[in-house]
Amino acid sequence: METISVKDVFKNYKQLKRVKLAGWVRTNRDSGSLGFISFTDGTSINSIQLVYKKQETSNFEEARTTKTGSAILIEGDVVESLKENQHFEILVKDFKMLKQADEDFPLQKKEHSAEFLRTIAHLRHRTNKYSAIMKIRSELAFAIHNFFHMNDFSWVSTPILTGNDAEGAGENFIVRSKNNELFFDKQASLTVSGQLHAEAYAQGLKRVYTFGPTFRAEKSNTNRHIAEFWMIEPEIAFCGLNQLTLLIEAFVKYLIRFVLKNCKDEMIFLNKLSGEQLIPKLENVINNDFVKLSYKDAIAILKKSISENKTNFEDNEIYFGKDLASEHERFLCEKVFNKPVILTDFPKEIKAFYMKLNNDGTTVAACDLLVPGVGEIIGGSQREDDYKKILNRCLKMGIKPEEISWYLDLRKYGYYKSAGFGLGFERLIMYITDTSNIKDVIPFPRSYGPINF
Amino acid sequence: METISVKDVFKNYKQLKRVKLAGWVRTNRDSGSLGFISFTDGTSINSIQLVYKKQETSNFEEARTTKTGSAILIEGDVVESLKENQHFEILVKDFKMLKQADEDFPLQKKEHSAEFLRTIAHLRHRTNKYSAIMKIRSELAFAIHNFFHMNDFSWVSTPILTGNDAEGAGENFIVRSKNNELFFDKQASLTVSGQLHAEAYAQGLKRVYTFGPTFRAEKSNTNRHIAEFWMIEPEIAFCGLNQLTLLIEAFVKYLIRFVLKNCKDEMIFLNKLSGEQLIPKLENVINNDFVKLSYKDAIAILKKSISENKTNFEDNEIYFGKDLASEHERFLCEKVFNKPVILTDFPKEIKAFYMKLNNDGTTVAACDLLVPGVGEIIGGSQREDDYKKILNRCLKMGIKPEEISWYLDLRKYGYYKSAGFGLGFERLIMYITDTSNIKDVIPFPRSYGPINF
Repeated sequence: METISVKDVFKNYKQLKRVKLAGWVRTNRDSGSLGFISFTDGTSINSIQLVYKKQETSNFEEARTTKTGSAILIEGDVVESLKENQHFEILVKDFKMLKQADEDFPLQKKEHSAEFLRTIAHLRHRTNKYSAIMKIRSELAFAIHNFFHMNDFSWVSTPILTGNDAEGAGENFIVRSKNNELFFDKQASLTVSGQLHAEAYAQGLKRVYTFGPTFRAEKSNTNRHIAEFWMIEPEIAFCGLNQLTLLIEAFVKYLIRFVLKNCKDEMIFLNKLSGEQLIPKLENVINNDFVKLSYKDAIAILKKSISENKTNFEDNEIYFGKDLASEHERFLCEKVFNKPVILTDFPKEIKAFYMKLNNDGTTVAACDLLVPGVGEIIGGSQREDDYKKILNRCLKMGIKPEEISWYLDLRKYGYYKSAGFGLGFERLIMYITDTSNIKDVIPFPRSYGPINF
Repeated sequence: METISVKDVFKNYKQLKRVKLAGWVRTNRDSGSLGFISFTDGTSINSIQLVYKKQETSNFEEARTTKTGSAILIEGDVVESLKENQHFEILVKDFKMLKQADEDFPLQKKEHSAEFLRTIAHLRHRTNKYSAIMKIRSELAFAIHNFFHMNDFSWVSTPILTGNDAEGAGENFIVRSKNNELFFDKQASLTVSGQLHAEAYAQGLKRVYTFGPTFRAEKSNTNRHIAEFWMIEPEIAFCGLNQLTLLIEAFVKYLIRFVLKNCKDEMIFLNKLSGEQLIPKLENVINNDFVKLSYKDAIAILKKSISENKTNFEDNEIYFGKDLASEHERFLCEKVFNKPVILTDFPKEIKAFYMKLNNDGTTVAACDLLVPGVGEIIGGSQREDDYKKILNRCLKMGIKPEEISWYLDLRKYGYYKSAGFGLGFERLIMYITDTSNIKDVIPFPRSYGPINF
């Protein structure tokens, strides 16, 4: 007899009679002649209740002594369950220990703090919550590839090791060979963004996206920052800012719909943990048009709200040219509109050198997507297509043009328009799983301090 | 009128009358009153011939002076072509220059050497050949995600920055913060494999795979080595070596079928370049069962072939315990069997510490997939599940157990069986696109020496 997955048992339990299962023991308790194992194999967030009986189960004593975490193989009958909220259970006929776990398996209790679980990052996905988050992470990644593939984008792997430090707004990691020697002909660092390279590929393949790891050697240890995280960066030739905002809205809605449909059990579980807040929040996003608002209008709204005493920020000094903080962004999407807001046309001084200068000479064709509960999760822009203008912006912002001459040169060869955005993958997962610490949505988080695992 | 993609024009040219296109000029020539532009927009390897006429095309003079590489927008009629091998062309009614290219656009000629094109890695995908390779790269990546998703695998992002140097068989890159200081509490390096972390996740999620960049600070500058490349590493709990070889065969065949079906035009183009060798080679792979052969039997075959003068290797010293070279591997799959061969059960001395010791005490449950034309492209194994045995192997091979205690500890908590393999993504693309240099199948290759782009 072949083994069947827990997922498939849940799908077909009404038709199933005898099943064979291989997986792990979550809990095990018995009362002498009768015992219960909560059983999982990682294919479903739902555990199956295995019932074993002295009179009916071969190797009954072995079953009794099975410890949490052990791998077992069982054959048994699907029977109706008398327990509430449980449609079926398995009466074990044949029990086989595959590998007994040690006493000290750390996941004995039902509840552990997120802090403690971070110290056992190699085991925490064996809990309900983390297996749900990691399953959603995987499904979201698939949804992203799917969305772009459907829309004729090519996936481009932009380099992790780079020689140009132009975007070094944050702190870069440097890379050397052993013995601390240079490996390349100059100092190499880890990429902070694949955008410049993606732009090169959009000039030729038209629609491309990157999906890869990026790095910041930031020493701040917040809930929202880690040193290694994954980014998604699409780039589209012959595309302007307006078309880009339409793509952003379609993309985000597709991802949320995909997860609600394909990770139903996981989302129901997380929704409960959130006090039934999570699914309504996400449904609010997919059922509403995103608000489009210019930065200038956003400033006016914030000023008005302060002057009318409708809000009080930690920082109430609002003016055109200010780089808005998270509290301002969240006020806009949570209090003013209660839905996602795409801010557009920011002052050039607070944005990157490669963004297209608008005709007003003061703003650039950039956009940020703000979502309730998190704030900014996407930043994008139309790129400056004029060689002289982008060269000027480099010089003004202290970027050495010779370091990225290949990038600037793209403008010489039929670079009409290009636009793209960046989405931090972990920020998205935090939002969709209602997880407050970024370290809990990536398998082995990296941040300033110890590096374990 | 909305623009339409070149791909869609080729699909529907029989039904189309008037079309609007935005894209780039590959070549442009004219004879005073009549001109021809080879036009592309990156959505298809096929270019469209645009015909412009003094009497019929608005902005005729602008069309005449359009340089190679320029971005244009045209509206015109789909008409039958008189040229052989070309079903249709577009008679341009309205011509609009979007962005004239500079004179010095380097891709003027039809043919350039691969060496030269590597010096313009930011532009080479604007040629037929490299756009085909990069399109296939993208489709292969999608096929990989698709295959695993269909088969209930979760994608796991294993860390790029690692603190354990256990697998440092090759040379590792080290990572520091700016000013060459340690960022973590100990020396961090760039991953050489996600396997150890994937194993942790298979214990819990059952079936997982990684797909991410890996690194080797190797100073050798061969056709087959680069410093940064992408690896695919599935890992399956409750899986032994035999089941693993079945997965490998199904996986490789799926990928080849996917590309032959979804990249038909690109494969026809590359097949021509290969002298009509490529597609028959790949069809040979999907239409045959892979050979399974023990290392021991392979040694016997090689010895016999030498003694019977059927072959003469550079290295004819064949014995049990030898780490076979590429010439031996290729002889087996090309000359002896003429199809893919999965070698199994290698002597433990030439394989990694984590591979499961067979009952004979001398071999391990490992396998290598050898394919005609390339040699090894996949290496896999069942992992050692016994804590004491793997500890012993660490000590014997000079690996400090305390450096990977978290990994060894997995064996304490219900680690029954686990198996997985590693596929070098670029090696696969080389094989499927018939490309001899690994630097030509990744957008921005990194290797010892200069780091440009």
